[in-house]
Amino acid sequence: MGTKAIRGTFLDFIDDPWKHVGDEAAATRFHRDGLLVIEDGIVADFGVYDEVAPRHPGVEITEIRDRIILPGFIDGHIHLPQTRVLGAYGEQLLPWLQKWVFPEEHRYSERAYAEEGTKHFFDNLLASGTTTAQTFTTGNLTCNEVFFEEASKRNMRMIGGLTGIDTHVPDYFANTPEQFYTDSKALIEKWHGTGRNLYAITPRFAFGASVELMEACRRLKQEHPDLWVNTHISENPAEIHGVLALHDDCTDYLGVYEKFDLVGPKFTGGHGVWLSNSEFRRFSEKGAAVAFCPSSNLYLGSGLFRLGRALDPEHRVLISVGTDMGGGNRFSLLNSLEDAYKVGMLQNTILDGSIVPSDQDLEESERNKLSSLRAFYLLTRGGAESLYIDDKVGTFDIGKEADFVALDWTAGPPAAPWHASLLLEKGGDELSLETVTDLLFGIMMVADERAVDQTWVMGELAYQKA
Amino acid sequence: MGTKAIRGTFLDFIDDPWKHVGDEAAATRFHRDGLLVIEDGIVADFGVYDEVAPRHPGVEITEIRDRIILPGFIDGHIHLPQTRVLGAYGEQLLPWLQKWVFPEEHRYSERAYAEEGTKHFFDNLLASGTTTAQTFTTGNLTCNEVFFEEASKRNMRMIGGLTGIDTHVPDYFANTPEQFYTDSKALIEKWHGTGRNLYAITPRFAFGASVELMEACRRLKQEHPDLWVNTHISENPAEIHGVLALHDDCTDYLGVYEKFDLVGPKFTGGHGVWLSNSEFRRFSEKGAAVAFCPSSNLYLGSGLFRLGRALDPEHRVLISVGTDMGGGNRFSLLNSLEDAYKVGMLQNTILDGSIVPSDQDLEESERNKLSSLRAFYLLTRGGAESLYIDDKVGTFDIGKEADFVALDWTAGPPAAPWHASLLLEKGGDELSLETVTDLLFGIMMVADERAVDQTWVMGELAYQKA
Repeated sequence: MGTKAIRGTFLDFIDDPWKHVGDEAAATRFHRDGLLVIEDGIVADFGVYDEVAPRHPGVEITEIRDRIILPGFIDGHIHLPQTRVLGAYGEQLLPWLQKWVFPEEHRYSERAYAEEGTKHFFDNLLASGTTTAQTFTTGNLTCNEVFFEEASKRNMRMIGGLTGIDTHVPDYFANTPEQFYTDSKALIEKWHGTGRNLYAITPRFAFGASVELMEACRRLKQEHPDLWVNTHISENPAEIHGVLALHDDCTDYLGVYEKFDLVGPKFTGGHGVWLSNSEFRRFSEKGAAVAFCPSSNLYLGSGLFRLGRALDPEHRVLISVGTDMGGGNRFSLLNSLEDAYKVGMLQNTILDGSIVPSDQDLEESERNKLSSLRAFYLLTRGGAESLYIDDKVGTFDIGKEADFVALDWTAGPPAAPWHASLLLEKGGDELSLETVTDLLFGIMMVADERAVDQTWVMGELAYQKA
Repeated sequence: MGTKAIRGTFLDFIDDPWKHVGDEAAATRFHRDGLLVIEDGIVADFGVYDEVAPRHPGVEITEIRDRIILPGFIDGHIHLPQTRVLGAYGEQLLPWLQKWVFPEEHRYSERAYAEEGTKHFFDNLLASGTTTAQTFTTGNLTCNEVFFEEASKRNMRMIGGLTGIDTHVPDYFANTPEQFYTDSKALIEKWHGTGRNLYAITPRFAFGASVELMEACRRLKQEHPDLWVNTHISENPAEIHGVLALHDDCTDYLGVYEKFDLVGPKFTGGHGVWLSNSEFRRFSEKGAAVAFCPSSNLYLGSGLFRLGRALDPEHRVLISVGTDMGGGNRFSLLNSLEDAYKVGMLQNTILDGSIVPSDQDLEESERNKLSSLRAFYLLTRGGAESLYIDDKVGTFDIGKEADFVALDWTAGPPAAPWHASLLLEKGGDELSLETVTDLLFGIMMVADERAVDQTWVMGELAYQKA
């Protein structure tokens, strides 16, 4: 692969913008004219062009003009075998699973279909600027083999694992706890740490797991403490009632996962719409993460995630953004940011006290406002931190894997270019961080994956918009 | 213009799908192979190709293949001079107006800028499949002249009028009640009923109107009882508190418009997020309409419109869908349907009693589910009924103006075609109403204005996707 360099306008994060209210720029690193030097796929140098270029005489430079280059986007929660059913009509979580999801996912037991679907899945990720995803598969071994094979072929930093379910599921789709354990072991041995693949012990959700299946998860985590754990939590009210009926020794949903020793660093619970304050505090204390999936939470009518509460500085919870495609109806994390912004603004109004005065909490209200810097922090450095892969991806720091995306602020619906021109007009001649901040907000609210012009994986161009 | 005919797959509505729960097909008219005959822009004949074609020997036929043809979309609430600020960051309604909207709208006092913006506005409407819009302008005469000139040039069925505001507004942007009255009179005389233009008396909102401005509106409506009235209502909690502080003789927001004799047929109140049950009943009794603007209500954090309550069969309120661009962040009513579906699903969960048992109302819960037939009814026949223009547009009935849109179910984000192929696979060889229903749902939830392949106005091709 050798050494190469990319010249362009770069933005990444050196800190959490929520820690810099009123001065979010302090959390960023912005080079209007920057140079990223890549050696065998790894960032070897990075900084202002005029400073970095002289250190690398003769290096081959690719110029990316009129684009904003960010670290590749990280999707904290997505379902590979739902690629084709995204946007299926009309149900809340539990009937939607039975009617649309399980039949489609079952088709991935057949290798040819799994290969077709997996190719679509990765093509869509790259077209959306997503270079890393923590992925649900199915409980079928073939589906998982195909996932890791394709991830290896694409050389992408992916997290995934056999997705176990044996309760509240059609017979044709159920795992047994023994098969779940045995197949998980085989996959862990073959794929965890092979290339860029990382393995997640994946009980689909507590509502779909017998005690025996949960015990198998506990055993896997004890035998492989370095593995990830990926699951769902507190998505839908009816689901929560169901979980607590199965586990009457637990007072809340998180308690079930705690009972089986799964909650700690590298644990991600998807959704968390209905998490209590106590659960948020325990997430925070244990270093566990929530994947916030706004498009899905709206699409399935699950509810409004309390982002401002999760980000309480005294009990801060690690957060990634997940598309939850196909519970989410869009592949692009830019669309997830749009919906996240909308969820945040609804919470902002609830918490400003203008509806019910006693609901007023102005600090929490403010934390729900998803500025573009907060938003893109979550897709990059913040997502990486929440998944404990920030030593590998999420910034342009030297030593990081060179995954990045080049965004075109003139692309999108027909309304996008004239809007962008207003921001540029306001910003003046030279592209400043302030203008870039405005353009990024336009990209997340007015555009969509059309703004993704290029996606690079390990220093190689993996997607170029047609 | 002469006689011409369009051959293709047509869908329109003969009734309200909410009246046919469990058999929404009974509200539709579907011709897999249909023929629409147009004479001088007006529907002259319509039906199954094999029946209609023999009645029109020699007519020139344009075939539109692999598309779903619907009546042109109707936007019940949109702001022309916000075309460029859509997607501006970070505020609820009232500060957003001050910071972003009034300065931009003020630029439309200058004819050249107004012409540029208005051209963008209409180009975006047509690219979104929108052929009719009830439009806010500004309080400036030039802006309104330009609006009606361009609408006339495009030959589109538009409703609009001088948008008056004199309270809670910067001085540079305020009307006086006298100027509002005089300029409105001039515009009414020149433009109402000229070509396809219709005039709406347009007090921006009660929070922005003095008693004198409201009196001017009352006088205009008394002098021109056939005119439309277009305004905002109950969008944001802080706004409502402000309105009731200005009018302490009124118990609710609707009462203010009632006090000035504005509420009746052809009255539309935009948003209505926080309307009480009493206000919904009075809307229903008086034949007044609400424009439901879901993208805006989410984007500005205004709240969740109670669609199922508005559609209570005992007190049914006339409803259109509005983008409220730029309070809404998208020009396309397809995106509004996406957000409307999401608002509806949140209400569906609230009202099923799974969160708070005493909130349970299963009938109202069900009415919040926005099936694709309900959704596209609102964009066409339903929207036309709510605006009292259903004698002119909204269906393919003989005598209607031939405005229509051809939708391409394979267009949209990269994920769209494979999703559509699943629906077609499920539907079998011949395109059935059931398959079209599924495809339309995919278009509103997975695609966007990219699905708009052609837009026709008065029987002429006005937009062809590149």
